Amino acid sequence: MKWKSLIGAARERIGGHVRHTPVAEVRLPGIDLPVALKLEQMQHTGSFKARGAFNTLLSGPVPQAGIVAASGGNHGAAVAYAAHHLGHDAQIFVPEMAGPAKIALIERTGAKLTVVPGEYANALAMAREVEEASGAMQVHAYDAPATVAGQGTCMAEWEDQGLKADTVLIAVGGGGLIAGAMAWLAGRRRVVAVEPETSCALHAALETGAPVDVEVSGVAANALGARRIGEICFGLAMQQELASVLVSDAAIAEAQRWLWQEARQLVEPAGATALAALISGAYVPAPDERVAVLICGGNVAPDPLA
Amino acid sequence: MKWKSLIGAARERIGGHVRHTPVAEVRLPGIDLPVALKLEQMQHTGSFKARGAFNTLLSGPVPQAGIVAASGGNHGAAVAYAAHHLGHDAQIFVPEMAGPAKIALIERTGAKLTVVPGEYANALAMAREVEEASGAMQVHAYDAPATVAGQGTCMAEWEDQGLKADTVLIAVGGGGLIAGAMAWLAGRRRVVAVEPETSCALHAALETGAPVDVEVSGVAANALGARRIGEICFGLAMQQELASVLVSDAAIAEAQRWLWQEARQLVEPAGATALAALISGAYVPAPDERVAVLICGGNVAPDPLA
Repeated sequence: MKWKSLIGAARERIGGHVRHTPVAEVRLPGIDLPVALKLEQMQHTGSFKARGAFNTLLSGPVPQAGIVAASGGNHGAAVAYAAHHLGHDAQIFVPEMAGPAKIALIERTGAKLTVVPGEYANALAMAREVEEASGAMQVHAYDAPATVAGQGTCMAEWEDQGLKADTVLIAVGGGGLIAGAMAWLAGRRRVVAVEPETSCALHAALETGAPVDVEVSGVAANALGARRIGEICFGLAMQQELASVLVSDAAIAEAQRWLWQEARQLVEPAGATALAALISGAYVPAPDERVAVLICGGNVAPDPLA
Repeated sequence: MKWKSLIGAARERIGGHVRHTPVAEVRLPGIDLPVALKLEQMQHTGSFKARGAFNTLLSGPVPQAGIVAASGGNHGAAVAYAAHHLGHDAQIFVPEMAGPAKIALIERTGAKLTVVPGEYANALAMAREVEEASGAMQVHAYDAPATVAGQGTCMAEWEDQGLKADTVLIAVGGGGLIAGAMAWLAGRRRVVAVEPETSCALHAALETGAPVDVEVSGVAANALGARRIGEICFGLAMQQELASVLVSDAAIAEAQRWLWQEARQLVEPAGATALAALISGAYVPAPDERVAVLICGGNVAPDPLA
C-alpha cells in the first residue's frame, strides 16, 4: 500500500462530506508570474482539518461512546463537525482561553461542548478522563496515517483543478497538511514549508536531524503552535529535502492585510503564513518559477460580524 | 453590432486588467442540488465595478484632464483604480458620510481624493464643477453601453468556467450588472433579480411599466440604493420577462452571516443580497432546478482588520 492509494481511498471516502474549495490567481508585487491560491479556508469549519477528521471517522468503527477531543482550535471544530455530521456523539473540551469566536464556532457544530476554566492542559486532562472512563475515541490532529491521508486529498484535488505550479508553499504547525501534500506529490513539485519564527517545530527538527520540542508563541500560535513536529511529516521532509523558511509575525500580519485589502479574503494569521513568505521575500521564486500558495484557515478572532 | 460582440470585445479589452474570479459550490439547507457561487467580490477594489470601469476607459480617448467621479462607494473605487492603473489622473469626490473604510479603500488606489463635508449631493456638485472647468471625463455607474458590456464579461467568464445552472440570481441596484448578464445570456438561462425591499428601483419600474423614482434606505443602500433603474437594464428586463424578488434587511444580514459562518466569505450587505433570496425562501427553486448566485461585493464596514 502506498500513500497514493491511501489518499485515493480517502478521496472516495470523504468525497460526499467535504467541500471542493475554489482556486484563484492573483498577481503579487515583485513576482512576474501569476500566483495560484487555493482557498481551503472555505472548507467546512474554516480549515483543511475537516478532511482528516472525516477520513479518520470513516476509516474504521467508531465506538458507541463516540468521539472526544480537547481543542479550542481548528482541529476541535473539524472533529466536532465531522462527528455530528456522521451521527456520532462528540464531546469537545475547550479551554476558556480559546476565546468566544472559537467557542462559538464549535458550538455551532452541534457538539457537546464543555468550556474548561484556564488553559489547554486543563481541557486535555478532562478529555482524557472521559476517554478512559467511556471508551470514546480521539482523533489525532496531525500524526496519524488517516489524518495525513485526509489532508493529502487537498493537494490531489488541487491537481485535478489544473494546478500549474513548480512550487507549492504550505504553512506548517504539526505537519499534517504538508505531510499529506508531500505524500501525494512524491517529489513531483517543489514543496516549501513556511513556519512562524516563533513556532517552528519542523525547522528545528530539520536542523537537529530529529523532532525536538520547541517553545511556541506569536500571532499564529493558536493554529500552528505544535511543540513538536509529527513523525510522519518529519520522515517525508527528510526524504524529499523539503525547503523550510521562517516568517516574522509582522510579515504574517502584512500578508493577512494583503489578502483582505487586495482579494477580500479574511483569514486567520495561520491562513496567511504561507503567503507571508512570498510577500516578505523569505522565499524568492526564480523569474520563470510558478508558485502556488495554500490558504489553510480562516477562523479569525474576533468574529467580524459579532 | 450585438451585445454578444460588445461583451466579447470588452473581454479582450479588459482581460489583462481584471481578475478571473473563482467559483465555488455550496450546499444550502432545504435545497437539494448544489448551489454555485461566483466570488466576484474578489475582483480588484472588491466588486464587479472594475470590469465596467476598465471597459469604459479603454473604449475611447480619455481627455488630458483625466477622470472625475463623485462616489463614496464601489463605483468610485473601481473608477479610481482603473484610472490609476491605466495612467490617467483621477479626482474622486467622496462624501464624508461614506465612512473611513470606503474612504481608505479609494485612498489606496492612488487617486486624488477630496473628502467633501456632508452627503453625496455635495460631492456630486463639486465633481460637476471640476468636470465643467477642466474637461475631465465621468464614467457612468450603470446606464451606459460600455459599462453594461464590461459588467457582462462577468457572466461570460462564468460560463467559460463551466457554469451549470438553470437560474442565476443577481442583486440589483442601478442594474448594470444584471443588464450585462441578461445581455450576454440572451434568455439562455433564467435570471432572477434580487433587490432589498427598501431599495427596489427595478421592481417598481417593472410594476409601473416604466422607470420611476423610489425612496432608498436599508443595510444595502450604500451599494444598491439607486433611485431609478437604468434604461438599458429596464429595456432588457421587459424583453426577457425577468423574475424579480424582494428581500428584507434581516434576510440580507442572515445571508451575510451564512457566507461568513459556513464559507468564510466576508461580504458587504449588497454582496449577500442575491443569496438572501434563497436562504429566506423569497425564491424557491424547483427540486431539479440548478441555481447559481453572483456574490458581487465585499466592501464591508468597518474594516475587519482596522
